[in-house]
Amino acid sequence: MSRQRVVIVGAGFGGLAAARALARADVEVTLIDRRNHHLFQPLLYQVATAGLSPADIAAPIRSILRRQRNVRVVLDAVIGIDREGRRVILDEGRPIDYDRLILATGARHSYFGRDDWAQHAPGIKTIDDATAVRRKVLLALERAETETDPERRKALLTFAVIGGGPTGVEMAGAIAELARRSVSQDFRSITPQCSRVLLIEAGPRLLGTFPEPLAEKARAAIEDLGVTVLAGKPVEAISDRHVDIAGIRIPTHTVIWAAGVQASPAAMWLDALADRAGRVMVRQDLTVPGYPEIHAIGDTAAFIRTDGRPLPGVAPVAKQQGKHVAQQIARGQSLPFRYRDYGNLATIGRHRAVIDFGRLQMSGTFVWLLWCTAHIFFLAGYRNRFAVGAHWLWNYLTFERGARLITGDAKPTNGEKTWAI
Amino acid sequence: MSRQRVVIVGAGFGGLAAARALARADVEVTLIDRRNHHLFQPLLYQVATAGLSPADIAAPIRSILRRQRNVRVVLDAVIGIDREGRRVILDEGRPIDYDRLILATGARHSYFGRDDWAQHAPGIKTIDDATAVRRKVLLALERAETETDPERRKALLTFAVIGGGPTGVEMAGAIAELARRSVSQDFRSITPQCSRVLLIEAGPRLLGTFPEPLAEKARAAIEDLGVTVLAGKPVEAISDRHVDIAGIRIPTHTVIWAAGVQASPAAMWLDALADRAGRVMVRQDLTVPGYPEIHAIGDTAAFIRTDGRPLPGVAPVAKQQGKHVAQQIARGQSLPFRYRDYGNLATIGRHRAVIDFGRLQMSGTFVWLLWCTAHIFFLAGYRNRFAVGAHWLWNYLTFERGARLITGDAKPTNGEKTWAI
Repeated sequence: MSRQRVVIVGAGFGGLAAARALARADVEVTLIDRRNHHLFQPLLYQVATAGLSPADIAAPIRSILRRQRNVRVVLDAVIGIDREGRRVILDEGRPIDYDRLILATGARHSYFGRDDWAQHAPGIKTIDDATAVRRKVLLALERAETETDPERRKALLTFAVIGGGPTGVEMAGAIAELARRSVSQDFRSITPQCSRVLLIEAGPRLLGTFPEPLAEKARAAIEDLGVTVLAGKPVEAISDRHVDIAGIRIPTHTVIWAAGVQASPAAMWLDALADRAGRVMVRQDLTVPGYPEIHAIGDTAAFIRTDGRPLPGVAPVAKQQGKHVAQQIARGQSLPFRYRDYGNLATIGRHRAVIDFGRLQMSGTFVWLLWCTAHIFFLAGYRNRFAVGAHWLWNYLTFERGARLITGDAKPTNGEKTWAI
Repeated sequence: MSRQRVVIVGAGFGGLAAARALARADVEVTLIDRRNHHLFQPLLYQVATAGLSPADIAAPIRSILRRQRNVRVVLDAVIGIDREGRRVILDEGRPIDYDRLILATGARHSYFGRDDWAQHAPGIKTIDDATAVRRKVLLALERAETETDPERRKALLTFAVIGGGPTGVEMAGAIAELARRSVSQDFRSITPQCSRVLLIEAGPRLLGTFPEPLAEKARAAIEDLGVTVLAGKPVEAISDRHVDIAGIRIPTHTVIWAAGVQASPAAMWLDALADRAGRVMVRQDLTVPGYPEIHAIGDTAAFIRTDGRPLPGVAPVAKQQGKHVAQQIARGQSLPFRYRDYGNLATIGRHRAVIDFGRLQMSGTFVWLLWCTAHIFFLAGYRNRFAVGAHWLWNYLTFERGARLITGDAKPTNGEKTWAI
């Protein structure tokens, strides 16, 4: 009998964990991703704010799995699934047959039906998203430097982050550090006091999933950095020149979206039942109802705990689910998945972070150091760990942000044809 | 009397050297560039071959000149010069008045009248060029891995570099290392022996500006790395699927241009006399004939030595000219420029480099170490020096190339709208 063919779609935290957990299983693994790299998304906001380079937090999938001989990596986009024929349909290559299928395709931004906001308020899910946001923030500072009209300069120096979850808090803190401290010596006309960073949250407070005292500490810390928190205020409109909240129009050239996510189209491929965010409803063993050979994990899956609460869309959930599914496949079992919650971390600039271990709740410098250590530890690849550690040390000691490059879409000069390829 | 206004266009080696040499002069300096960063172009080929990240070899112009209070940095594109009104016309901002003007706008690729080749054979002059080439090379390897037709796979694994000067030699050596060594363990179907790197030179030999024995050593070293040198063979045609040389059609998906450069359009702005490569003909004091207040330096200028030979388009020439012009402005003098040639270096993969000090000519490991040291020393900014040193050490010890990211133009998946912003 030939070996079981396990196909994994997506090399994020969940897909990679599943592939690794199958290292010693007697199966043939095919890992398909649209990109050639695994990305450490929790640090993507630091690329967007010029603290780290893309290559510091990403590693080629092939390199990560180099020593695992039962894995084949395929760079291609999945465009459908033939459930009856048990085949994954690819955009460029030939269909790939599976005996077991693991869907770990992650999530993208959701604008809650206002897709027209996407062009004005980019989110950050990919490296290209992050470098686009970096470009937007740095260009606003550059334009403010030469702008002489005070109203327009104020709008250029107003940065609005939508969404008060961990991503929004981290992003707002990092922008405040960049706009108010890191670049303060580099400009002649604009001063740190000129810039405003707004953190806008529709719900009643920041960090809704954290206990209230911790969220309160985070709010105080982020306000210390110069961020203005506007909670309980849903966004009503976004254009390229302003954002409207609670009936007030705020002129700004830079709006960043950290408010909502939506699952990738795996549920459409399967024609399966999905929740409001597009996530596939899965059984307790993470299989798709009616298809015991198809598993959905991480942000692709809506897993409802036995107490009725859904699991959050965070990396530890995806990793544990990937490992669980792989073990079940290797052992030929079908046991229910149980999530182990090791705590909830968020960081706010230098020296500040909050952590929620359930009964134990902490904040301050020690937690910040813990956050730095944990993130370096979880990065894939020794090279990335070394690079991030070194850059952080440098940024910490010098207050500089080294990756302040505006790339892409270079300004054309009259008479030129071929600067950019 | 108000202070003299010196306007510098371009923050490459020449423009930056001029700005720095004016640090203690009683003048107001305005430095205009289309990009926000100074780029260390000699190492750009290492970004294109995934050895370094863009941020390692680039630094924000504002940061470099942070402590020099008489400089103002403007991010904008120059679109013309009003010689009579002594004003530089910008694309976005208001015109800038000058008393003295230094044009240091550099060069771009020249396809010798075959501009249609540009789309198939990108060159590398900017960060975006380099990441585009990196994308092309890495995608060819990925496609070869899943290609089953042997002819098409061979074409995907054939890399052609056009131009046998130092850039072409370095680029071919780096691609050979990437395609044959660094990625050898990461792929399952393709092996190092599958790939071919061709270095195509129209002239009779590689490194035409180096003495013949040194060029011969470089040829031997690069052939050791697995590069096939085709000298004395001009390119006849380039398409997206092949390159024609000397009547032979070679199927390839990846052609890289390192053959010719052309000056930026400064001569057009001035309506000045230019050489065949578009460089402004300058006097011995680097002023433009008829305009003693306008200077052209580096790749923008055609400077003919008193013995009738032109100066090469290399970084030391630009730097020395920038410094010379700045000193003349500070002192109110107009002395002729003299170039001091400290030698000519080219590197070929690990442990190999050639150097031409005039009477002294060397090659081998010692020269390679000298090359590494010199390049780290000349990088702008301590952070870049540290980052490049650390990455090189890592690459050297592990044979890995860490920056192997395919970015830009992500593959769209069916049903998705907003992955990329």
